Amino acid sequence: MANLITDRRDIDFVLYEQLDVLALSKFPKYKGYNRKTFDLIISEARNFALKELLPIWVDGDRVGATFENGQVRVPPSYHRAFKLLCEGEWTALAESPEWGGQGVPITISVAADEFLVGANLTCNSYATFGGGTAKMIELFGTDAQKELFLKNLYTAHWGGTMLLTEADAGSNVGALSTSATSNPDGTYSISGNKIFITNGDQDLTENIIHPVLARIEGDPPGSKGLSLFIVPKIWVNEDGSLGEFNDVVCTGIEEKMGSHGSVTCSLALGGKGKCRGILLGKPGQGMMIMFHMMNEARLKVGFQGFIHGSAAYQYALAYARERRQGYDLEKGKNVDDEQVPIIRHPDVRRMLLWMKSHVEGMRSLEYYIAHSFDMLESTDDPDAKGYYEGVTALLTPVLKTYCAVKGFDICVKAIQVYGGYGYTKDFPVEQLARDVKITSIYEGTDGIQAMDLIGRKLAMNKGAVFAAFIKEMRTAAERAAAIEQLAPLAADVQGAVDRFEALTKHIQESMRSASFKVAFANSVPFLMVMGDVIMAWMLIWRASIASEKLQKKSKGKDLAFYQGQVFSAEYFVKSVLPETLGQMDAIVSGGDAVVNISEEAFGG
Amino acid sequence: MANLITDRRDIDFVLYEQLDVLALSKFPKYKGYNRKTFDLIISEARNFALKELLPIWVDGDRVGATFENGQVRVPPSYHRAFKLLCEGEWTALAESPEWGGQGVPITISVAADEFLVGANLTCNSYATFGGGTAKMIELFGTDAQKELFLKNLYTAHWGGTMLLTEADAGSNVGALSTSATSNPDGTYSISGNKIFITNGDQDLTENIIHPVLARIEGDPPGSKGLSLFIVPKIWVNEDGSLGEFNDVVCTGIEEKMGSHGSVTCSLALGGKGKCRGILLGKPGQGMMIMFHMMNEARLKVGFQGFIHGSAAYQYALAYARERRQGYDLEKGKNVDDEQVPIIRHPDVRRMLLWMKSHVEGMRSLEYYIAHSFDMLESTDDPDAKGYYEGVTALLTPVLKTYCAVKGFDICVKAIQVYGGYGYTKDFPVEQLARDVKITSIYEGTDGIQAMDLIGRKLAMNKGAVFAAFIKEMRTAAERAAAIEQLAPLAADVQGAVDRFEALTKHIQESMRSASFKVAFANSVPFLMVMGDVIMAWMLIWRASIASEKLQKKSKGKDLAFYQGQVFSAEYFVKSVLPETLGQMDAIVSGGDAVVNISEEAFGG
Repeated sequence: MANLITDRRDIDFVLYEQLDVLALSKFPKYKGYNRKTFDLIISEARNFALKELLPIWVDGDRVGATFENGQVRVPPSYHRAFKLLCEGEWTALAESPEWGGQGVPITISVAADEFLVGANLTCNSYATFGGGTAKMIELFGTDAQKELFLKNLYTAHWGGTMLLTEADAGSNVGALSTSATSNPDGTYSISGNKIFITNGDQDLTENIIHPVLARIEGDPPGSKGLSLFIVPKIWVNEDGSLGEFNDVVCTGIEEKMGSHGSVTCSLALGGKGKCRGILLGKPGQGMMIMFHMMNEARLKVGFQGFIHGSAAYQYALAYARERRQGYDLEKGKNVDDEQVPIIRHPDVRRMLLWMKSHVEGMRSLEYYIAHSFDMLESTDDPDAKGYYEGVTALLTPVLKTYCAVKGFDICVKAIQVYGGYGYTKDFPVEQLARDVKITSIYEGTDGIQAMDLIGRKLAMNKGAVFAAFIKEMRTAAERAAAIEQLAPLAADVQGAVDRFEALTKHIQESMRSASFKVAFANSVPFLMVMGDVIMAWMLIWRASIASEKLQKKSKGKDLAFYQGQVFSAEYFVKSVLPETLGQMDAIVSGGDAVVNISEEAFGG
Repeated sequence: MANLITDRRDIDFVLYEQLDVLALSKFPKYKGYNRKTFDLIISEARNFALKELLPIWVDGDRVGATFENGQVRVPPSYHRAFKLLCEGEWTALAESPEWGGQGVPITISVAADEFLVGANLTCNSYATFGGGTAKMIELFGTDAQKELFLKNLYTAHWGGTMLLTEADAGSNVGALSTSATSNPDGTYSISGNKIFITNGDQDLTENIIHPVLARIEGDPPGSKGLSLFIVPKIWVNEDGSLGEFNDVVCTGIEEKMGSHGSVTCSLALGGKGKCRGILLGKPGQGMMIMFHMMNEARLKVGFQGFIHGSAAYQYALAYARERRQGYDLEKGKNVDDEQVPIIRHPDVRRMLLWMKSHVEGMRSLEYYIAHSFDMLESTDDPDAKGYYEGVTALLTPVLKTYCAVKGFDICVKAIQVYGGYGYTKDFPVEQLARDVKITSIYEGTDGIQAMDLIGRKLAMNKGAVFAAFIKEMRTAAERAAAIEQLAPLAADVQGAVDRFEALTKHIQESMRSASFKVAFANSVPFLMVMGDVIMAWMLIWRASIASEKLQKKSKGKDLAFYQGQVFSAEYFVKSVLPETLGQMDAIVSGGDAVVNISEEAFGG
């Protein structure tokens, strides 16, 4: 059970050897934190997750959330774990203690999430999603609003959600029709129907606070006419006491492919004309405010993709070491021999090393972004701030989509490692695959992320953000080039970065040309290529550290770990990156069939 | 509903324009068949499938097969459909009328299966899997055995299975421990436990005939010591009447990721010492006989992969034409405009064209193999026979694995086209994805198929089979090269075939070298590359026909269809094949990290 979600050694490697998070404690915000406190938090999260969250993970799937007679119920076993999540103060690790958080570095909070989210995403979500609602109020609310809502949300005393989607307004949220009408008392009457609302109703908290996108009557169509309202399930009086039911009714929950422990609600607002909301920020600021939350949510979704992949890898690895089947190819087929663990078989090793290198690369990317946020909040250096602000914005869509796609791919490969057993519910990997698939969809599909990347992010600050990002990758490759063993790999990574930079110019020129639709058709492949190049960056960086450690004669488990880092980089650069280069070729010379084919010619 | 499984126009294209199956009627075996009879069979299959099989497809998933108090039950709604499948004589279309089949060309039987299997694989399986059992008896049984079993199996009066796998003998079937002891009456007493037995028990047929791999006491270990036994669930007396229960007990069924309509049984044979079997063929011939069935089963599994992909594409295409979301990029974002169908969005078109080109390429491959089997059975020309025998053997592992993997990938992309709706059970694509995943596992995993390909098939007849296959691909590319519009694409296909031929030499040399484990580590990537090259072959062939038709001024729907063929080829060659070339690079220069990394260095 020890490492069945995530590899603690690998977390330590990233925290203390790759990113040096201990240096954060030189900033006032994190004064007093040290390796001991960090390790304590991570170890407690791990113990708690393994003891309380992992054992009920299967309930999330098999029992699932239910909706009967208008009542939403989470899996019964979630109640105890939820209570303990709150009591253990796991609900808002990185938030300010002023509002009920723990004030730990975001990086360390991510390390805790490897276990808390890795062990049971859906159960954990009830305790943490309110934080997203709270963050918007913290950033854009009045003092009175903060007093009323923040602490209750960050401590998960109340739940939180986000109400954007409607049946005819999904990716195009600006098309929504929920309306808000101003009342004499300063509140707004809200009327509309929302769908796909994660944790939109549940039986865990006494109240739920819904941030709702709606259009004030008379405001313009499209997204610029949207405003954001705080809509409690139960009205919150000015003194903080609870008032009457606020006419937010769950009309049904979705039957889904996975993630059954999470409730996905349809909500009717103001069906009886009695739903009131409080304006957050100013009229017309809805999308701007919501995007603050969305960006954070997108990073969290990318993390979910990654951590499912990490868990699937750990399970598959443990299984491959235990399961005996067939004989060692080297010895020839001698049926009198004992069968060997399947990790000896080249095809199984290929799958495992593919999984390993992607998991490690994604882990480093996750922490790199988390660390950038820590630095953004801590440093006073304006150049550094500019870099961190830029790079987090640039990489958000890539991290979200790449980790969602590769996390799913890893789970699918894990099924393959298990063979027939992997397809059964006796083993965890098929659930991981079903659960994680949603990460490519919610908080903006892969396609939406890719449009954000090529349409907005590449050109930020006239390309200065992108240039700084490329420079960071080159710096890592140069470091590796100075290490004899890594020099050939480093040259390949440098070559890939060069090719990628040229590809980016190509796609940007294409965006400005008459064939801009071809650029958009290539946006997801471009994003995935960018993710691959980032993986190469992270892995060559990791291999550089490991090589330096190996030169100092590591021993035992450390030795194997560091060697494993070099193998991950070698495998990725030699076996994955050539495919990536092929994808770059396809983007450059792929032609315009996608744009030119008539709708009728698709057949059907 | 019309085309929600498969595109009849595309079937006709392959049958009558690409492969000219009407020419089969010149052979005695298919004398009297013509386009009218073919169309009648296909249309009836389609009508029946849409009316009876498709509506209960969801029951397979939601109701599923059950096991209570030792009793296996299929979904109740399957009973009527099963009865109608038998009455309509859909159980053994391509088998000999002598034994209860319909004697139609295999190609046409595949066309019928596009609907029968496409609409409801698991329900159809109860009516057709007995055919695999029957085929072994037809090929290797005595006249008495044929009389006893064939007709009842081919007509699905009795069910059939295949009992290979045991808990410790999966991919390594030779490790199994089920034993057979000779009895004085010529039968054998069978004792052992089998798992993962598809349709191993059910409540549809009065009897089930199990072909069982077991080891006669005293026979050598490994696969060469295995023999095959016919083990009825209920004993069949020599006069054909049913005897007593034969001690074959279902001890449980698997809870699976999908394919819930199909029963996956654990079976205990001879738990009370009363299980008898009849030897089929000679002692020690078990694997040889079973492989006859396995090869056919593998082709069927590849077909299942393909047809799920085909269905997913049809659903996604229909949805993309209907669902309105967002605005046309060309017109800029004008929120006063009506939202457009999502098929207008470049990213959606990319996914659809990716799906379309793979579905069409796989369809042509499926029929090419089916047609090769028809020719093999029909022609007297020894050279032709040799070619068809070789190419079907060579392509079996490729078709099985490539169609399984790409079929799944298409279903996953279909979920993505639907967005949030695709993740719900209100739409069919998530079930298609869950159902089809098993095709990469059963009848030999992807890894097993790839070992068969590089270990056995490439070198068949000293490479003559492979050379003939390459020549066929070159011929198709040359035909396309003569068509002005296709010449550049044809050159790319020729280049890919050249590169692939060189890659094959490389991998064969690597197999004979000290680094043969690296070759095995690359076996699945090699197989997938081969599949891609075959897709390019099929698509350029199709585009050639279409271009020739277009030159003759097609009109209306035909015009769009033929144009669509050229677009499929263009997209695949320009946007997919470059990735394939990158994968070839990765195989050649991918290094040996997979082999060299220590087991400990995998981490965990």
